[in-house]
Amino acid sequence: MTYTIPESREAAQAQDEHDILRHAREAFDIPEGTIYLVGHSLGPATHTALDALSRAGSFEWREELVSAWNTAGWFDLPVHIGKQIARLIGAGESEVIIADSVSVNLYKLAAAARPLAKSPTLIVEEGEFPTDQYILEALANLAGTDFIRAGRGNGPDTLAETGGVLVMSAIDYRNAEVRDIAAHESRAAETGGVIIWDLSHATGVIQLDLKAAGARLAAGCTYKYLNGGPGAPAFLYVSDTMCDTLHTPLPGWMGHARPFAFEPSYTPAPDIRRMASGTPPILSLSALSGALEVFEALDAGLIEDKARALGDLVIARVQAMGLEVASPLDASQRGGHVSFTHPNGYEVVQALIARGILADFRAPDTIRFGVSPLYLGFEDIWTAMEGLEDILTTRSWDNEAFRKRATVT
Amino acid sequence: MTYTIPESREAAQAQDEHDILRHAREAFDIPEGTIYLVGHSLGPATHTALDALSRAGSFEWREELVSAWNTAGWFDLPVHIGKQIARLIGAGESEVIIADSVSVNLYKLAAAARPLAKSPTLIVEEGEFPTDQYILEALANLAGTDFIRAGRGNGPDTLAETGGVLVMSAIDYRNAEVRDIAAHESRAAETGGVIIWDLSHATGVIQLDLKAAGARLAAGCTYKYLNGGPGAPAFLYVSDTMCDTLHTPLPGWMGHARPFAFEPSYTPAPDIRRMASGTPPILSLSALSGALEVFEALDAGLIEDKARALGDLVIARVQAMGLEVASPLDASQRGGHVSFTHPNGYEVVQALIARGILADFRAPDTIRFGVSPLYLGFEDIWTAMEGLEDILTTRSWDNEAFRKRATVT
Repeated sequence: MTYTIPESREAAQAQDEHDILRHAREAFDIPEGTIYLVGHSLGPATHTALDALSRAGSFEWREELVSAWNTAGWFDLPVHIGKQIARLIGAGESEVIIADSVSVNLYKLAAAARPLAKSPTLIVEEGEFPTDQYILEALANLAGTDFIRAGRGNGPDTLAETGGVLVMSAIDYRNAEVRDIAAHESRAAETGGVIIWDLSHATGVIQLDLKAAGARLAAGCTYKYLNGGPGAPAFLYVSDTMCDTLHTPLPGWMGHARPFAFEPSYTPAPDIRRMASGTPPILSLSALSGALEVFEALDAGLIEDKARALGDLVIARVQAMGLEVASPLDASQRGGHVSFTHPNGYEVVQALIARGILADFRAPDTIRFGVSPLYLGFEDIWTAMEGLEDILTTRSWDNEAFRKRATVT
Repeated sequence: MTYTIPESREAAQAQDEHDILRHAREAFDIPEGTIYLVGHSLGPATHTALDALSRAGSFEWREELVSAWNTAGWFDLPVHIGKQIARLIGAGESEVIIADSVSVNLYKLAAAARPLAKSPTLIVEEGEFPTDQYILEALANLAGTDFIRAGRGNGPDTLAETGGVLVMSAIDYRNAEVRDIAAHESRAAETGGVIIWDLSHATGVIQLDLKAAGARLAAGCTYKYLNGGPGAPAFLYVSDTMCDTLHTPLPGWMGHARPFAFEPSYTPAPDIRRMASGTPPILSLSALSGALEVFEALDAGLIEDKARALGDLVIARVQAMGLEVASPLDASQRGGHVSFTHPNGYEVVQALIARGILADFRAPDTIRFGVSPLYLGFEDIWTAMEGLEDILTTRSWDNEAFRKRATVT
């Protein structure tokens, strides 16, 4: 579907009416009067997620008790959810599993990738998501290998020089810039390096085709655009071609070839289960699985198209207000949020929140508008931009009385 | 309170009526007609846990959205729950935090303890819980240090010889044998070794006093006797005296001294938060926090007294049936479950389950009866033992028709 940038509220309404994705909104349970632009941080609740959560607690746990590990399918839930996510990232059904947090998964993948790369050197860019940097540096310290914190944008060159292991976000968490997975994988393959993709800000909002792009290892967050619930466990992707060479540094009973034999030595499961560790938090997993049902009938290409168009609308209006856009202007180079700056960014975001327009702020001056296409329409963005314009024009964020009020709420 | 071993159903009833802990049972939401003897594997649901879960989903997440990290206290939940658990294990309020799984926590503690012990050698007994063995061996491989799988009961001697790091369960997962934490810590302190206690089968059923016993590091499970819900995240204990010397191998943004500054380098929080990694699964944490409310007014010594008496009753009856008890007969040496053997253990357990008496089986021949004192009374145990006796006497487990039926249910 081709979306355009509406130039009036009426045009925005008209585009919403013809939007193939408009029914997706009905799946969400968002409070009346809220325009939610923070889906890049925490996706909102869906009816299916809340229903699955309630069922897991009040029926499966309460009624079936420990038997639910079999009867309710808890034991297979990490693999089941992996299949739900696989479709969205262009992976095979056997290539994705849910386990732990993104941080822990990156650690597992990086440790396991070290012996497979030409050199065990661990690389991360200085602008990368902070935790990714901490994890790599700590792993290098423990394993006694070189760690390189490359300059911004220099990760791939450093990878080519060393043939090591690079952790890189597919979409930058600050400005939503997109990395070309296929191009980087192709170059890495030539030089013996291994890339671990952090898909946290990409999954569920841009079209990913990991298999076609030749991606081998990845991890990602499920509580942003996948709407899995606060702190929902992360996913982990391993290409089938690499799976049987991969040995986790955190082997747990869930990843054992024979989990119920209670053997003293670890034999990894032959498939992606080998990357699981301890018992996963089933209640949180259940909500996540429910949330993913919303994606079942949806096309990732369509989601991407709409996210780009919503972002284009934000950019057009922000630029008209004379603000500086920090995200790529070219929609094909941009993920699911738009970052722009204002010297009083914090106060402006507080003023937006007071009007029911939820956005977020990153120090020192960046405002981020997440444009998740499943529950946001063009008119929502239009309304949000009008609100922003009004706040800037009236400088209502500079009103002492308002600021006091905003602190209390 | 002094409990006795009742010798008749009437005596069991009488003891239940005068039991100080009898009201604790009202907190639980266990299906009618079920006698639940699997609390050592998965604790049942409580009203407060289900309420907290529902509130976290339908109110905090749905209504407050991303703001709930502050308004609903999500950010502090791992530390808040740590305080709830601290009281139960004799720890200071600042010494416990919730994070990850037991496996991952043992890994973090063992890696962090290595530079603090006289030698970095990692030790675990061959009879230890399998995952604990896998984790230690994998850590040794990655860090390039010695790994010793000591013979059964030889862990402490090996620790004394090497001055390394030993992971040891406070209660054995098979037969519920209790380890003397204070004695082992005292010996370890003399020889420069460090012990990491796995409290999974101990917490919530025996009286632990970690501070008085000189315990320095521990991790434990929250979904067994603490009834936190399936796969509820684990806890981690670090004595205040050791906290600032401990550096996690899995540093995440939640453990940073300034988590919202997004600094490229890791500075650990000055307190127990430094052992946190990625974003925790809030929905599962919420249920856990609700479950722990049940313990608020209860005395751990009383819980231990009753668990011992319930176990004594199981043992008296099992021995009267001529079965072999695998657990310590001396209640002071035994945790919250009783293990005994039968050559047709699997079929016997299936027959029990068919009668609403839920127990578990471990290959090749071990039956485990968990005697969690908060929701089980002496009459429940009496009924369960009558059921067992009837099954053994009539050999109803050997009935082909029954076995077919049991497979279906």
